[in-house]
Amino acid sequence: MNQPTTGLLGQLAIFHGTGQELELARHAVPPLQPAELLIRNLYTTLCGSDLHTYCGLRQETCPTVLGHEIVGVIQAIDPAHPALDLNGDNLTVGDIITWSIFSSNPDSPNSIAGIPQKGNELFKYGHALVQDGDAFHGGLAEYCILKANTGILRIPEGMPLPVAATINCSVATVAGALRMAGNIKGKSVLITGMGHLGITCAAMCRKAGAEWIGAVDISIERLEDSLHFGVDKLYNSRGDYSLLVQEIKTDLPRKAVDLVFDMSGSPEAMELGLETLAIGGMAVWVGAVFKSRCLPVNPEKIIRNLLTIKGLHNYNYDDFRNALSFLKENWYRYPFEKAVAKEFSLQEVEQAFQFAVKNKPLRVGIRL
Amino acid sequence: MNQPTTGLLGQLAIFHGTGQELELARHAVPPLQPAELLIRNLYTTLCGSDLHTYCGLRQETCPTVLGHEIVGVIQAIDPAHPALDLNGDNLTVGDIITWSIFSSNPDSPNSIAGIPQKGNELFKYGHALVQDGDAFHGGLAEYCILKANTGILRIPEGMPLPVAATINCSVATVAGALRMAGNIKGKSVLITGMGHLGITCAAMCRKAGAEWIGAVDISIERLEDSLHFGVDKLYNSRGDYSLLVQEIKTDLPRKAVDLVFDMSGSPEAMELGLETLAIGGMAVWVGAVFKSRCLPVNPEKIIRNLLTIKGLHNYNYDDFRNALSFLKENWYRYPFEKAVAKEFSLQEVEQAFQFAVKNKPLRVGIRL
Repeated sequence: MNQPTTGLLGQLAIFHGTGQELELARHAVPPLQPAELLIRNLYTTLCGSDLHTYCGLRQETCPTVLGHEIVGVIQAIDPAHPALDLNGDNLTVGDIITWSIFSSNPDSPNSIAGIPQKGNELFKYGHALVQDGDAFHGGLAEYCILKANTGILRIPEGMPLPVAATINCSVATVAGALRMAGNIKGKSVLITGMGHLGITCAAMCRKAGAEWIGAVDISIERLEDSLHFGVDKLYNSRGDYSLLVQEIKTDLPRKAVDLVFDMSGSPEAMELGLETLAIGGMAVWVGAVFKSRCLPVNPEKIIRNLLTIKGLHNYNYDDFRNALSFLKENWYRYPFEKAVAKEFSLQEVEQAFQFAVKNKPLRVGIRL
Repeated sequence: MNQPTTGLLGQLAIFHGTGQELELARHAVPPLQPAELLIRNLYTTLCGSDLHTYCGLRQETCPTVLGHEIVGVIQAIDPAHPALDLNGDNLTVGDIITWSIFSSNPDSPNSIAGIPQKGNELFKYGHALVQDGDAFHGGLAEYCILKANTGILRIPEGMPLPVAATINCSVATVAGALRMAGNIKGKSVLITGMGHLGITCAAMCRKAGAEWIGAVDISIERLEDSLHFGVDKLYNSRGDYSLLVQEIKTDLPRKAVDLVFDMSGSPEAMELGLETLAIGGMAVWVGAVFKSRCLPVNPEKIIRNLLTIKGLHNYNYDDFRNALSFLKENWYRYPFEKAVAKEFSLQEVEQAFQFAVKNKPLRVGIRL
């Protein structure tokens, strides 16, 4: 097909499916459509979902360009774009920005209901099909073209790129989880799964005034890391879950937890969370964005204990803005920068994935 | 034991356990303790829970005096009582009142957190042990002694007793369910289980601006009755549940329900509800206050569809006041009075239970 081009060529890493090496290719960068922006990607962190896709735990459209935790610099703004970010700040060429993982029609019912991540004409960065003339939509590439109706945020000066890259997935999702949880002040909070979502959740809950924060993970290393993010008590889940429930309850003055966030996606962890909840308590489930077994839920217990279960997938624009605000004030108060264990170049993307899968660090970074 | 007495003797129907005839006895009415009230019961409706206990579906302390949907007239007020109801209205001898199904310590953490029904020193009317000197705590008796810290509401003039009696269980619980559901305006609502909770829920949702109300029940008679309480569409659940899910979705402009209230306690109905929910939808479970099988809940679906599940048991004082306000304005707009299919005297209490179990009307009444 003959596509008009900008004359620019951009490198990208194409994922063809589990077990196949990522293909490094060069595509022509197409001209912008109305209200689009051309971004030169600067930094991408590999999210847990990228690793799940890479390992075959979740099925995505293929071939695709993975990577959705991205920060980049504006190269061009189509004149039909309002050139404003979600905070109302002017956008100009050269600004370092991040953007919502999705774009969608703002007039669709879900968008109006505050769930734009499920709006009509949904497009998701790092999840789309590589097509002729439409390949620059992921973080593992030199360029990204932002569709119309993508939420954009300018990165504050001084925020390191490896920190900024995590805003538009991990940090924004956690901001959404806290919104769903409501008032955190004075609450006892249990977090199951101390990956990047978990440590961010701990730091956000601490800042929101949580009285007590417990962390559950299968990895002692991750647990120890989480101590630097505001966690009070660590629980290693390599063992008998019923004993763990008792241990957690014993540690708490009211013998139960007000709030539990599951960031692990592990059915056992979600069950543990429900078991530890106080009367009137709430479980917010975030992690299980892949197939897992069903949980047996006892309706009488849910009712008699006035429990709430809420599921959250992605986030809305308020969450996204709150994520930026939180990190702006707090990235240097907690060791968010150290979450990236190792950096790779785009040429080393295959090693980056292999390192991430083998060593399970909070994040690996791709400096572009 | 020698107890001081008021000289009054009161009749009461004592439940000794499933399969045993209710015992009609006379006990001496003890003098009031500090802040107690003596009530001459006027009318009690048999709630679904009473029938469950009578039939052995739930185990209560025995011997007990059943009946907790009660309205009565004040006979005496201990001087330590503030003599005010929850609306701040003065209480005097001769006032017709209803009262919260529970009393609890208002200083306990759950009470402060807005869940007084789970407060410390919890006492529940119609659920307590008959003891020497402490037997008048249920509706199936001539008298009831209200403990300190019982929420009291004066019944508005003109409200029929069979309507007023349902306020402190069914109507207040439904008011709590609507509080948990949040904004109802413009929402499509499915109600599973069209007993007294179900029809009350329909009427309350209608008044709160629901766009569409569907009703699911196994009984055609109950479904037809529910049409008088604001329901738009009836679904008989005697059949294939998966077909029913499709039928419900087809009937809706957005092909899914925003809110589902389960008042039935049936696991199949709760599953049906979850299946019909739209993205961002909420299920409020109220009915399953008895042992039932666990529900297999798919966490990925809860997360990707941003679903919420909330359980509610009993209600708080706001719900109780809202229940009265709702009925005050609406008892004559809907056929609430007809919900009582038949009335019995206290002497006929055994026949009343048998009639209720056999014919399953919305309510039977005991006129005392």
